[in-house]
Amino acid sequence: MITIEIKAPYLIFVGTETNPTEAKTGAGMFEWRPELCKGQLALEGGGLPINLPIMSIAEAKEAGVKSLIIGTAAIGGAIPEQWLDTLEEALMAGIDIVAGVHKRLNQIERLSAAALKSGAELIDVRVPPEDLPVGTGKKRTGKRILMVGTDCAVGKKYTALALEKDMKKAAMNVDFRASGQTGIMIAGKGIPIDAVVADFISGAAELLSPDNTDDHWDVIEGQGGIFHPGYSGVSMGLLVGSQPDAFVVCHDAGRTHIGGWDDFPLPSIEDVIERTISIGRQTNPDIRCVGVSINSSVLDEGQRLEYLRDLSARLNLPCVDPLKGGTGVIVERIKAEFPSSIL
Amino acid sequence: MITIEIKAPYLIFVGTETNPTEAKTGAGMFEWRPELCKGQLALEGGGLPINLPIMSIAEAKEAGVKSLIIGTAAIGGAIPEQWLDTLEEALMAGIDIVAGVHKRLNQIERLSAAALKSGAELIDVRVPPEDLPVGTGKKRTGKRILMVGTDCAVGKKYTALALEKDMKKAAMNVDFRASGQTGIMIAGKGIPIDAVVADFISGAAELLSPDNTDDHWDVIEGQGGIFHPGYSGVSMGLLVGSQPDAFVVCHDAGRTHIGGWDDFPLPSIEDVIERTISIGRQTNPDIRCVGVSINSSVLDEGQRLEYLRDLSARLNLPCVDPLKGGTGVIVERIKAEFPSSIL
Repeated sequence: MITIEIKAPYLIFVGTETNPTEAKTGAGMFEWRPELCKGQLALEGGGLPINLPIMSIAEAKEAGVKSLIIGTAAIGGAIPEQWLDTLEEALMAGIDIVAGVHKRLNQIERLSAAALKSGAELIDVRVPPEDLPVGTGKKRTGKRILMVGTDCAVGKKYTALALEKDMKKAAMNVDFRASGQTGIMIAGKGIPIDAVVADFISGAAELLSPDNTDDHWDVIEGQGGIFHPGYSGVSMGLLVGSQPDAFVVCHDAGRTHIGGWDDFPLPSIEDVIERTISIGRQTNPDIRCVGVSINSSVLDEGQRLEYLRDLSARLNLPCVDPLKGGTGVIVERIKAEFPSSIL
Repeated sequence: MITIEIKAPYLIFVGTETNPTEAKTGAGMFEWRPELCKGQLALEGGGLPINLPIMSIAEAKEAGVKSLIIGTAAIGGAIPEQWLDTLEEALMAGIDIVAGVHKRLNQIERLSAAALKSGAELIDVRVPPEDLPVGTGKKRTGKRILMVGTDCAVGKKYTALALEKDMKKAAMNVDFRASGQTGIMIAGKGIPIDAVVADFISGAAELLSPDNTDDHWDVIEGQGGIFHPGYSGVSMGLLVGSQPDAFVVCHDAGRTHIGGWDDFPLPSIEDVIERTISIGRQTNPDIRCVGVSINSSVLDEGQRLEYLRDLSARLNLPCVDPLKGGTGVIVERIKAEFPSSIL
């Protein structure tokens, strides 16, 4: 498979950051893949309040670390000058550097020189693999569930990771498939679908969830929104190439308009379900919605319970806020709808 | 506007080719833009049977030629070694070279060196402009008509060029807008939409048909097909970004399945109309179909007339083969549907 691949275990680099909200990539990697994180590396004054020891490059090397993950964003998305000594030291110790920053790592001379010398790799999760194919539309084996959104930034990645965790707990055979940069860092592989050349969107999506055993589920991170004035082409290609058996609609309870596109009212959840099924049928005639995931941070607990109950009655679907109690009822629905996919 | 731009007038380079079907870019430029073509340049034994004088680089320079257009494809899509003397001579005479070949022109050392020395440009119509924006979805002034297809290669570019010609004949204010490489060469500008990074498809489509006067029509070349298993993301982004007032469905009467994707039956023209309206309404609530363009090359004349008559009755739309009698009835429909857009 020609997706980006990151070697585990990881050392999370957080610079001088101390706040997990600011260093959300690093904090997210520890939240979702603690077993792959050996330690965190901070500059003077930095360090996240998470259960990962602060390590030097030498200690990380000793502990078997294969990749240093840049887990925090600097102002402007660049690599600050004062990080370079540390990053160079890591490369010279044979540790790969992984980042999703705006400037490409291999355009920073000290880093490309050190990588060339040591053989360690510079992995830029915003750069798609080369020579992607055009989508074939051919049916693949195994099962797939795609996150789709009423908008961008409504919890598609979080929902996919929560579903993966809860499906694993239910003894299902499952893999999270990342289609965006933070997801790729967490999964250790994937393709940044929004950075792919237009002709190859669905081909890249096909690579992301290859043939698998009949009992296997790919939980695919969504991108954009099928009604989005800027990004619907990405969402369309990802949907067609993913050929999902099932999908979950992700929605933010506080949103009325497309974020940043204030002239565009948000589509209803029903609209998103209808269009996703209509388009998805081309590559999977059995596609169906199995639940709704709500970011309910604008609601208090009483409001949230009422909102989820009303929505569930209206749509006849399990509706959850994955942050408050997980995705268990959606997992139950998946098992009920696809009994042959259970081990 | 940051689209590709080609300087007229042109010298059409045809290598050793003598057959207009093989040199279809060169022949197409002369067919649709004869007023911009000063001559053709052939190597020993070459030359198209069209009404364009064979010219040397020196004669072309003398005649005011600004761009040499590579109007024929070589085997494998490369630039053959034996073309380089001529191309270098053109560059040194200050004439730009324009091509849509697989290997980038600026990666051919003799050409990039000559261009650097003379200041002439190497223009690769398969390379989109840099720094494209994300689509805003904002309503633009002027009118737009988009070609959409039941498949790729069903005559979308030809139909758009025929419509432009017939609308001009009807004294309408109109411009062909090219979204693919051959179209860009013919139009002298445009953006190769299928080569744009996924996030910017609809943003690029917005640039392609900018604000204009109320009586002005952009006739936009389509790409792919909204039901295509490989390219529907491109078609979706182009549709959303083009915000067309009207569209024409292009179809090949002899096709039953998506070309090259034999497991996929072709969508019906009705399906394409319905989905195009459903998606197009997001950025233009008044979108409507104004006609159907048929490539009827598999039918004899009697069959063609019957086919077009039946189709027209079934859809209640003007249906034409633009190669056999033009697009006049579609132009009439546009004028009837949009009376305020007539001068």
